[in-house]
Amino acid sequence: MADALAKRRRGGGRAGNAARRGHAVIEQMPWRLPVNLDRPTEPLDEAGIAALHDGAMRILEEIGVAFLNPEALEIFRAAGCRVEGELVRMDRDFVMEMVGKAPSSFTLTPRNPDRKLVIGENYILFGNVSSPPNYWDMEIGRKVPGTREQCANLLKLTQYFNCIHFAGGYPVEPVDLHASIRHLDVLFDKLTLTDKVMHAYSLGPERVEDVMEMVRIAGGLSHEEFEATPRMYTNINSTSPLKHDHPMIDGCLRLIRRGQAVIVSPFTLAGAMAPVTMAGAVAQSLAEALCAIALFQYVRPGCPCAIGTFTSNVDMKSGAPAFGTPEYMRATQMTGQMARFYGLPLRSSGVCAANVPDGQAMWETSNSLWAAVQSGTNMVYHAAGWLEGGLIASPEKFIMDCELLQQIQRYLEPATFATGPDEIALEAIREVGQSGHFFGIQHTQDRYTTAFYQPFLSDWKNFEAWQADGAVWTPERAHRMFKEIIASFEPPAMDPAIREELTAFVDRRKAEGGAPTDF
Amino acid sequence: MADALAKRRRGGGRAGNAARRGHAVIEQMPWRLPVNLDRPTEPLDEAGIAALHDGAMRILEEIGVAFLNPEALEIFRAAGCRVEGELVRMDRDFVMEMVGKAPSSFTLTPRNPDRKLVIGENYILFGNVSSPPNYWDMEIGRKVPGTREQCANLLKLTQYFNCIHFAGGYPVEPVDLHASIRHLDVLFDKLTLTDKVMHAYSLGPERVEDVMEMVRIAGGLSHEEFEATPRMYTNINSTSPLKHDHPMIDGCLRLIRRGQAVIVSPFTLAGAMAPVTMAGAVAQSLAEALCAIALFQYVRPGCPCAIGTFTSNVDMKSGAPAFGTPEYMRATQMTGQMARFYGLPLRSSGVCAANVPDGQAMWETSNSLWAAVQSGTNMVYHAAGWLEGGLIASPEKFIMDCELLQQIQRYLEPATFATGPDEIALEAIREVGQSGHFFGIQHTQDRYTTAFYQPFLSDWKNFEAWQADGAVWTPERAHRMFKEIIASFEPPAMDPAIREELTAFVDRRKAEGGAPTDF
Repeated sequence: MADALAKRRRGGGRAGNAARRGHAVIEQMPWRLPVNLDRPTEPLDEAGIAALHDGAMRILEEIGVAFLNPEALEIFRAAGCRVEGELVRMDRDFVMEMVGKAPSSFTLTPRNPDRKLVIGENYILFGNVSSPPNYWDMEIGRKVPGTREQCANLLKLTQYFNCIHFAGGYPVEPVDLHASIRHLDVLFDKLTLTDKVMHAYSLGPERVEDVMEMVRIAGGLSHEEFEATPRMYTNINSTSPLKHDHPMIDGCLRLIRRGQAVIVSPFTLAGAMAPVTMAGAVAQSLAEALCAIALFQYVRPGCPCAIGTFTSNVDMKSGAPAFGTPEYMRATQMTGQMARFYGLPLRSSGVCAANVPDGQAMWETSNSLWAAVQSGTNMVYHAAGWLEGGLIASPEKFIMDCELLQQIQRYLEPATFATGPDEIALEAIREVGQSGHFFGIQHTQDRYTTAFYQPFLSDWKNFEAWQADGAVWTPERAHRMFKEIIASFEPPAMDPAIREELTAFVDRRKAEGGAPTDF
Repeated sequence: MADALAKRRRGGGRAGNAARRGHAVIEQMPWRLPVNLDRPTEPLDEAGIAALHDGAMRILEEIGVAFLNPEALEIFRAAGCRVEGELVRMDRDFVMEMVGKAPSSFTLTPRNPDRKLVIGENYILFGNVSSPPNYWDMEIGRKVPGTREQCANLLKLTQYFNCIHFAGGYPVEPVDLHASIRHLDVLFDKLTLTDKVMHAYSLGPERVEDVMEMVRIAGGLSHEEFEATPRMYTNINSTSPLKHDHPMIDGCLRLIRRGQAVIVSPFTLAGAMAPVTMAGAVAQSLAEALCAIALFQYVRPGCPCAIGTFTSNVDMKSGAPAFGTPEYMRATQMTGQMARFYGLPLRSSGVCAANVPDGQAMWETSNSLWAAVQSGTNMVYHAAGWLEGGLIASPEKFIMDCELLQQIQRYLEPATFATGPDEIALEAIREVGQSGHFFGIQHTQDRYTTAFYQPFLSDWKNFEAWQADGAVWTPERAHRMFKEIIASFEPPAMDPAIREELTAFVDRRKAEGGAPTDF
């Protein structure tokens, strides 16, 4: 009885129900953790790997990284690293010893244990767009500051689509909520509208502690249960070049001390905050990530860490950031090789510079998502909904991206390249011979419902049928789907007692003033 | 003097001039033959390769392929194959012996020798969309039957873009020209508006002979010179399942006997004219291609042949063909592995099912173009301009695709992943340290103009600047570019005497009635 209650409180077994409910609007692929068995695309030879490693190590040994966090400086000093003011230099032996303690994979278990993720191995998992300050949709038709309602709608898409595995940062920044209590309201929305893995921004101790507490409450967990296995994660960026800010490191230390996971993703734009050469930008990114991971491993050996890449290039003409470029793809692939060299799970992204969900948006996003596949990426951030270099979130783009994510999932299924006798199908070929067709034969009848990927958004009608159907271009189709999904959305089950406890926590923390806003 | 004249007659050295003139509208990458050094994506293990090979061989040994061409039947009989009526069965030893005679690479030299192509090795070359009966552009806004003017405009794009290496079939079928003389007028347009490698449709002996003669005249070549090295090619499809039609085989025989190249590209839609399983569809495609190539190698050992793949799947709901699907990608990759197994150059395609140049068009086309890269494809047909499963040609789509093709070319450049000391850039990183940025330093100044790919169509402005600039979506931008390119187009140089000779040939053949239209 206690077990059954605990199971119910954790929302066990409800992923399937939620997926079934969703079938009202579209038929989508079931929830699963896709496995990427393709051999990665590896532009670097052994010498290239050695050069990047040596470059990263020499940056850490000779140039050093600034840590604007006194606690981190103390720890590095205690570990025998050379600390001068805020500058830390460390030997490669120390870095490699510490990085060697990090697990090559770990799990993340959200309130619904059916949504548990494995970060690492050959898994490739996708998360929603995170942190754009602005929103755009076909109905509004212009860029507007994000709101709680838009954020909630994008969270509903995050929950609705089975190809989205984790809830990243806020899918749009709800600037109508005061910054002091924003994390409380959005986390309440995230935890009640979704049952997938949660993220905390490392923006001050109060926020980080609040989010951990809310995730604990939502999971119906004791403090011991919460800390026993990773339930959530934070993702930090370094302040490139070669600097880690206080709240980012503080947030990570808080999480790892409670057994939660961290991802370190330097944002190294080649030509701006990193060298104009891609290998230089990657070397710098590796150095920035590895020194933080070394710190965390020294503090808590074996704590779950992933290495992130966000290396892209600028527009040579304007200095504006560019995304999904050829150089971005190569940087992602190179970082993939290095992540395997260091034995760390890899995070990359789905990105574009386009301002609207048009052809450019999709070639840039396709480039970045295929680079994620080719690099052996384990966590794909911003995989759905990102526009304007991350400054805009769009529900139409979200849905268009999910169509592509499903295609990638299907592409990775070994069924697409199976070569057993049933697949070679010699007898079917013999049966049809030199005339006739394969539509009606038993071999086809037995397989046609599952043989091929079935898109939910691509329109495969011929031109005349498409025209008769209103001649609707892709973003308009996505917009209609968005309205229907939101209109029929049902949140995942949550025990009323847990919901009450969460509400009470939010109310109490709001009454206390939330978090300081002087970060 | 004679040499100089011959050189001038052949239009030597003018590719560079043409490219320079083109700079008026856009800045594009220079003409070059891209080399693909990425290790291919190989879904098949050794057992999978063996299973596909065995499947293809057993199809040829046990089931057989129909050749609706008496001459081919005679040749197969003479070669010791088992011929019953139109059905031909052949042993794998014969097939492998003949296929082994085919060169693993060959050249194609058009009238401008600077445009010479190498088909095979690690080259990946792109051609325009071929053979859609219909046309769509943003101005017309609907699907219309193709005209000579539209065809000529698309040929101007073919010539204009340096990333397009060869002129495939008619970029749109000019149905305003009578079928009996269509090949004469379009080839005149192709040969005068472009100086790139030419294609001949294998649609009856008169057409094939006319095209070969026109290519010879345009090159200023004697018959001996024309036959001394491949100047052009034909591409044939089998009539799947397991059938080769008369004119296709006839055209190939005519070309190989005059030293020209052939590509055999079965069109095996899984679930329709091939098994519903991708491996079965690929096995059938291989069988259909290899038996024709075996025939050609028996007739003329060592003649230049490439193997084509056009294996995709149908829509499970409607039976309509689908393109750029996950299954399409895997079929292309599997065929790539088999092409390397047989030692043959590979042709694949840039394809989509979308009806307009929107997001869907670009994710489907991206999928197929990246599959071309991943499979080690040497010739990419339909690489620019294709919509509606090949039923529509669109200039906007052509230009959007060229943007992606340029990105692929740039992606393949080793500069994007070079790791020498200059690229690791330790001193630049040391110089900038933990604050400041890389914009102004010498390492950046020395490289910023060539460090990154510069798109001609992608708009990297931020939303506000993009909006101030008219908020133009990708296809509208492409449309404007299309109008400008056509308005300022200058055809490549051609000796007036050659142009006269070509005109006279066309006039004479028209007076003779052109070609029969009962094919």
